[in-house]
Amino acid sequence: MRGCLITLEGGEGAGKSTVLNALSEHIEAAGIKLLVTREPGGTALGEAIRSVVLDGGIDQVCAESELLLMFAARAQLVRERIVPALSENTWVLSDRFTDASFAYQGGGRGQPEERIADLERWAAQGIRPDLTLLLDVPVAVGLARAQIRGEPDRIEREQAGFFDRVRSTYRERAKSEPSRFRIIDSSLDVGSVTASACAAVSEFIATRRNSA
Amino acid sequence: MRGCLITLEGGEGAGKSTVLNALSEHIEAAGIKLLVTREPGGTALGEAIRSVVLDGGIDQVCAESELLLMFAARAQLVRERIVPALSENTWVLSDRFTDASFAYQGGGRGQPEERIADLERWAAQGIRPDLTLLLDVPVAVGLARAQIRGEPDRIEREQAGFFDRVRSTYRERAKSEPSRFRIIDSSLDVGSVTASACAAVSEFIATRRNSA
Repeated sequence: MRGCLITLEGGEGAGKSTVLNALSEHIEAAGIKLLVTREPGGTALGEAIRSVVLDGGIDQVCAESELLLMFAARAQLVRERIVPALSENTWVLSDRFTDASFAYQGGGRGQPEERIADLERWAAQGIRPDLTLLLDVPVAVGLARAQIRGEPDRIEREQAGFFDRVRSTYRERAKSEPSRFRIIDSSLDVGSVTASACAAVSEFIATRRNSA
Repeated sequence: MRGCLITLEGGEGAGKSTVLNALSEHIEAAGIKLLVTREPGGTALGEAIRSVVLDGGIDQVCAESELLLMFAARAQLVRERIVPALSENTWVLSDRFTDASFAYQGGGRGQPEERIADLERWAAQGIRPDLTLLLDVPVAVGLARAQIRGEPDRIEREQAGFFDRVRSTYRERAKSEPSRFRIIDSSLDVGSVTASACAAVSEFIATRRNSA
């Protein structure tokens, strides 16, 4: 049986890190072999790109370069880790994937949707998640939480309008693909958010096992 | 008057660095304001990408990622430096440009030509050189020269078959666009190569001035 790809998406301060850790334990406790990764990153090349695009102290990064860098990291992650894992029946849990490019570089920075879809086809080999959890939180609430964490990276320093567009794009994508997305209300306390995320994944695992 | 973009292309050991320096002096001596740049590189982002893709000690870089990284550097170079320079009547001399992606990532690594042409349109804003000098040298001669220079980078460590395909692609492109390309026989001594390159550029400058 082929493994499944589960992705976690959401804006700043949505609680992705906490949920990722909880989900990772939850999936492994179900007896599933799991690879946990993140974007941009997850490979030697991807982590080097992450340093350049997020933390490199480089202020001038045009929207086109940002999009290309995200897909350069993703192309390597897909070929080096995700596809080999899935083919060996290992599940993959990724902190962000292609939906993030549609939300950040598309909605946020105005790169055309068709351009991103084309890159998804050839650079990401058309790989799409089997399940995507969108941790959805009002922008003001998320940004207030994120500010407590310390130094923002280059993208986190954007204005509220940018994050409004990111959130809208995420929500539109979730509504247009209801069978793949689960929207988790992340304005609630972390315990409730984590419980909702784990419940969604449990339901997904059960459905998969019943259909196998 | 809009400035002109002149690019220098060629495989390993073709003598690009020496010719670049000579051309730079030659063009400025003609009273032309000149920006000299290189690819990948030429901006803070581009130089960081260059470190990752060529010297980063990262062995696993798929062909798709390499192509995307080259265009991520190029997209920034075009917007941050080339277009502003050309619009101020500054000429630009670049050590490699988009032809190198067709030769290395296309011919060398098998990325489809149409994919590269599409990236050229939107990532490089369709910017094409006004004049391209192709320093052409048999692969064995070039590699023997390059070996004297010291540690090869990630791409320079490729096999001879790779460089054969790179050279063939460069030559095909030069033949298909004779009005833009000048092929310089770089198997000759460095003095002859430099003289040929400067003569080609002098002729180009004269044509431009006559048509202005």
